Amino acid sequence: MNKNSYIYGKNSVIEALFTAPNRINKVLISKNSSNDSKITEIVNLAKKNHVIFQFVPKEKFKDYSDCPHQGVVALVSPVEYVELSDFLAHKKDGFSKIIILDGVVDPHNVGAIIRTSACAGFDAVLIPSRRNAQVNAVVEKTSAGAINHIPLIQVNSLSTAIDKLKDNNYWIIATDAEGKDNYYDVDYTDMNFAIIMGGEETGVSKNNIKKSDFVVKIPMLRKFNSLNVSNAATAIIYESVRQMITKSKHRV
Amino acid sequence: MNKNSYIYGKNSVIEALFTAPNRINKVLISKNSSNDSKITEIVNLAKKNHVIFQFVPKEKFKDYSDCPHQGVVALVSPVEYVELSDFLAHKKDGFSKIIILDGVVDPHNVGAIIRTSACAGFDAVLIPSRRNAQVNAVVEKTSAGAINHIPLIQVNSLSTAIDKLKDNNYWIIATDAEGKDNYYDVDYTDMNFAIIMGGEETGVSKNNIKKSDFVVKIPMLRKFNSLNVSNAATAIIYESVRQMITKSKHRV
Repeated sequence: MNKNSYIYGKNSVIEALFTAPNRINKVLISKNSSNDSKITEIVNLAKKNHVIFQFVPKEKFKDYSDCPHQGVVALVSPVEYVELSDFLAHKKDGFSKIIILDGVVDPHNVGAIIRTSACAGFDAVLIPSRRNAQVNAVVEKTSAGAINHIPLIQVNSLSTAIDKLKDNNYWIIATDAEGKDNYYDVDYTDMNFAIIMGGEETGVSKNNIKKSDFVVKIPMLRKFNSLNVSNAATAIIYESVRQMITKSKHRV
Repeated sequence: MNKNSYIYGKNSVIEALFTAPNRINKVLISKNSSNDSKITEIVNLAKKNHVIFQFVPKEKFKDYSDCPHQGVVALVSPVEYVELSDFLAHKKDGFSKIIILDGVVDPHNVGAIIRTSACAGFDAVLIPSRRNAQVNAVVEKTSAGAINHIPLIQVNSLSTAIDKLKDNNYWIIATDAEGKDNYYDVDYTDMNFAIIMGGEETGVSKNNIKKSDFVVKIPMLRKFNSLNVSNAATAIIYESVRQMITKSKHRV
């Protein structure tokens, strides 16, 4: 089963029918699913967007038994990644901000980081093709459909990608428990920047920390472990949002 | 199977042996588990803390087959909740800050919010006994052991609890997409406060919003859904940390 190839659950399928109907090849609905308003909405959205849908026996869902599909699965084309060079060539006006994942292995965390990045108006999430969870059904679900709202850049070499970003006037901000500055001491409002979030067990790789312009930490007020990586990402991402909005207010 | 009664996975069991050995009744280790350094650490920690451990056939783990236990499970006493009145009676000096959950149903989100609250030095997480996920093995795991580091208050009536907090000079801050202020416009540094995080689908209940002194929103920079509730909690919790640390610096 190609994990890239389906979306499960009523809300997720509705979201996909709204935002990315072109990616959907077919919607399967269990004949046994309770015929509620969401199923009606799915059928209506599918008709409206000329998406094929079928009511099928529940046995058809045995391939999806490891996820809470609620009797609805959409078979989809894999998400399309953007090339870094294409992303840089079509950069919009104004400062650009992206998130880089460096070894984040839990797809729930990848999905949640993509979701926060989309909500915060970031321009892209960069995902290495190795040693990092790839975009699959769990990522798509956890992102609440955000993977269709924000460009995802895939690169083979993270090290080369960071060099390329630096050549294009991005400042690189790594996160590390031993960072020199607190994350809110950086001024995020007057530069292009890329924030590197490291893996759950491994953190940002030493080589990439060396390449960074800033290494920031999130203060811990109890002697205990650390934040989950998607929560750490959110603290930093939303600090940059706060700075941007409050700064533009003061300018008025 | 009482979901309150075990911890699974090598890292989680190690964490529990460090921070809450008294809660552990027995550690089960699969005879088939790879005999790596973490198993050695578990055995050594168990011996040191006088915790019973047993190497058992893998068939013993069939009760835990729905979680990635890595061949290690610790049977534990359920987490002990604190009564709200006891918590208030033993409040430490200085301003107090707590998180209130109002209908958060995904145990991963409950665990992540407890983890962030512990990292941020909050004083407690208040969990209603109904219409909210309770502390179970998934919460314990997702919290990375934080449930042993921060008091968890359980209440039967959230409405009554909020009244009690108000009587004890807490300001109540509800989060809502239609909130009046942005979350960073509140000054978190000179009051006792309780932040209410609402359920994934339902948000903070209308009645509790009415009782709140502030209703704050997190700005969305793309027309798209909203943040995951644990990430929304982290943005607000860490904004309060930022304000507190930077304010105390300016005082010096």
